Amino acid sequence: MRIAVDANGADLGPAEVAAGAAIAAARGITPVLFGPADEIGAVAEGVEVVDSPVSIAKAPEPVSAVRSTPDASIVRAARAVASGDCEALVAGGTTGAALAAALFNVKRATGIYRPALAVPLPVPNNPVTLVDVGANAECRPEHLVQFAHMGAALAQVVLGVERPRVALLSNGEEPTKGTPLLQETYALLAASAGLDFVGNVEGNHVVDGHADVVVSDGFTGNVTLKLIEGVSQMMVGAIRERATSSPRAKLGGLLMRPALRRFRDEIDPEGPGGAYLLGLRRLGVVPHGRFTRYGISQAILLAARGTSGDVVGQTHAALEAAGALRSAPAASVPSR
Amino acid sequence: MRIAVDANGADLGPAEVAAGAAIAAARGITPVLFGPADEIGAVAEGVEVVDSPVSIAKAPEPVSAVRSTPDASIVRAARAVASGDCEALVAGGTTGAALAAALFNVKRATGIYRPALAVPLPVPNNPVTLVDVGANAECRPEHLVQFAHMGAALAQVVLGVERPRVALLSNGEEPTKGTPLLQETYALLAASAGLDFVGNVEGNHVVDGHADVVVSDGFTGNVTLKLIEGVSQMMVGAIRERATSSPRAKLGGLLMRPALRRFRDEIDPEGPGGAYLLGLRRLGVVPHGRFTRYGISQAILLAARGTSGDVVGQTHAALEAAGALRSAPAASVPSR
Repeated sequence: MRIAVDANGADLGPAEVAAGAAIAAARGITPVLFGPADEIGAVAEGVEVVDSPVSIAKAPEPVSAVRSTPDASIVRAARAVASGDCEALVAGGTTGAALAAALFNVKRATGIYRPALAVPLPVPNNPVTLVDVGANAECRPEHLVQFAHMGAALAQVVLGVERPRVALLSNGEEPTKGTPLLQETYALLAASAGLDFVGNVEGNHVVDGHADVVVSDGFTGNVTLKLIEGVSQMMVGAIRERATSSPRAKLGGLLMRPALRRFRDEIDPEGPGGAYLLGLRRLGVVPHGRFTRYGISQAILLAARGTSGDVVGQTHAALEAAGALRSAPAASVPSR
Repeated sequence: MRIAVDANGADLGPAEVAAGAAIAAARGITPVLFGPADEIGAVAEGVEVVDSPVSIAKAPEPVSAVRSTPDASIVRAARAVASGDCEALVAGGTTGAALAAALFNVKRATGIYRPALAVPLPVPNNPVTLVDVGANAECRPEHLVQFAHMGAALAQVVLGVERPRVALLSNGEEPTKGTPLLQETYALLAASAGLDFVGNVEGNHVVDGHADVVVSDGFTGNVTLKLIEGVSQMMVGAIRERATSSPRAKLGGLLMRPALRRFRDEIDPEGPGGAYLLGLRRLGVVPHGRFTRYGISQAILLAARGTSGDVVGQTHAALEAAGALRSAPAASVPSR
């Protein structure tokens, strides 16, 4: 399986992306790297390189940069997916650039209002998929309904959750809580076919197993995702500090180290490989710009797993069955 | 100092509130409990009881319950503050009831658009005040500007931060990030006199010392506050689980126990005593309904500390100096 990868999308540079690609190639995937061949250097067997030195990874206006830079590595990678040469897109760097490159080239799937970013969160014992984590700062209720179905399809296909429980992130459990957007969305979700909607979930219940999928607008979802990362890191740091606060604690910390190291791996944001970009004709995966080779390899493997599992097709089928697809206005449909 | 306390506002019942009041009384405060005298029972020296058996703590429509139940304990407590018999209000239970009882009786301070809830978060090494955490699900930019000044005054007076750094919670650092509400607020804050505005802060930087005060609308702030609590609890639970996962880890956990117990105390949500309700003529404190006597005593002491430090007066002075007070429409100002 060929996966298009923007090699300019990592803070650590194209060579780090190549190192991540090598790990994925060893698992039978063919990563196709779009980036500066000289910086990528020699690659492992099974990794291909398409020399694309132009980078818009640091462009202040990612959307216009995508429009005006057809030879940018991220745009070329997206085109390779659109043409069918590659099956999925992995693009780190700014979310705006990844989203725009995918939207303009891979295009939205039929009936989708807005693509959304869904991330399977690394929560010990209670994995939860959060959607949208940043593609759409502002949403309408029908967008959130589609996000709910997308998230449920993802949890089903990729994470193997048989009947995912879907919740709406709000500031209280009652249907009347939250903004008008949330109140309207609550009513739509409660009436939505084929969805196990369990109601509103508050911030403290996002990570304790109340739901398999948590739906929100991209602004709140982004703040949520980053808070979870930030608080986890703060806790790990504070516990490490306490574990060296006295000779007794130091000895205890030493004995606990293997167990805590496993725990740190469990909550490692690089583990899940990033966010799925759903709602396009093909799958996208957006790793965090600061990921190392490990996270990048996970992103490529995530894209491959989602493609094998036909996340795009399954999502579309779920939306269709629920009647949640947008009906095309008759006037804008060409006759053939 | 006399502090009015709604004894019906705790999940554990009026007797638990009385136990919390006893702890505060031992520190020289006079808590005046409004609740069912028979359930409150005998009280410690220095604690007063005003028999108010009617409770609206579980009312599904708190605002209309406040309007239609003048003898409800929370309403009587608020009236005691309005009349000057008590100096501050402590009201747990639903935020809606506390807010409505305070708004209708204690009233808004001159020039304030909306009261807001500000909570000093128990973050090890990097205490941060979050405002608003739930009084206003929807806000306008001028509301957020007032919240910023309120939070800064609070951090200065109560927490002793000399020149609080104020940040706006968003999904990216650039001024163009976030919703139109945030973009407009960013511009206003950047131009606001007497404020050390440090720009936008993302979710992962709320708890790592980037700012002393983090401003957001009440919806996002509420989700944020509860997420921090939820993720902290999840982490403590997961680490406890790992600490018993092998004989070696168990021994390590035993040795680390005193250090970890101190840490657990540091992040205990009951420690700060709840949220300050700012923007009223007198101070309010809203503890969480599930608090035990310890948290309730902290809430009463927080109210006393805020009153001694004249948080209300200082906040007003800060808003006035910054020109952030709402100018009263001439027609609605009575001639005397």
